[in-house]
Amino acid sequence: MHEIVGKQEEVEPEEVKQAKDVYIQWLVKGPNYHMRRFTFKPGAKMNPHSHPWEHEIYVLRGKATVGIGDNKYHVEEGYYLYIPPNVPHWYRNDGDVDFIFICVIPNVES
Amino acid sequence: MHEIVGKQEEVEPEEVKQAKDVYIQWLVKGPNYHMRRFTFKPGAKMNPHSHPWEHEIYVLRGKATVGIGDNKYHVEEGYYLYIPPNVPHWYRNDGDVDFIFICVIPNVES
Repeated sequence: MHEIVGKQEEVEPEEVKQAKDVYIQWLVKGPNYHMRRFTFKPGAKMNPHSHPWEHEIYVLRGKATVGIGDNKYHVEEGYYLYIPPNVPHWYRNDGDVDFIFICVIPNVES
Repeated sequence: MHEIVGKQEEVEPEEVKQAKDVYIQWLVKGPNYHMRRFTFKPGAKMNPHSHPWEHEIYVLRGKATVGIGDNKYHVEEGYYLYIPPNVPHWYRNDGDVDFIFICVIPNVES
């Protein structure tokens, strides 16, 4: 696999099927893990769900509540999160601006 | 491994030994890959080096030139990069502000 250098604005956002007003951009599909960029429009949410792979997240913009298991966290720019495999989690954009984050997942079939 | 939620400002920056005015914050040490945040002060650079693991990078702030193999790229906020294993690469902050990026590496002994 060769090097990749690109600009996020040039990566087409795809609508996330399980939610409304949530978009994903696939930035890098690497040999071991993938880097994606999510955008939640104001008021957008993703309901509790789980899967057998972890997330590593870095928040770029906006304010949101993130549920992980029984816990709730208020996050904004500069927060990082590790969501373990098989733990139910959810997101809700609580702010007036887009909630945007980088989310890395292992290279597994989803 | 339990969930982790934190704020980057609260993670102590460590000086990178192979360079001057370059700092690393270890945000998440996950089971499969690690998320780090790098800060290059204005003028700071890291000389060409290589290692048997890849990088997946997202640029948060600033402007820099990044060398990958024989190629040179000018990057700024919103750029993403994939640097393959064993390819020499280097960074130089060309701007007046800190050059900051997220860099994910696989869980290998470095």
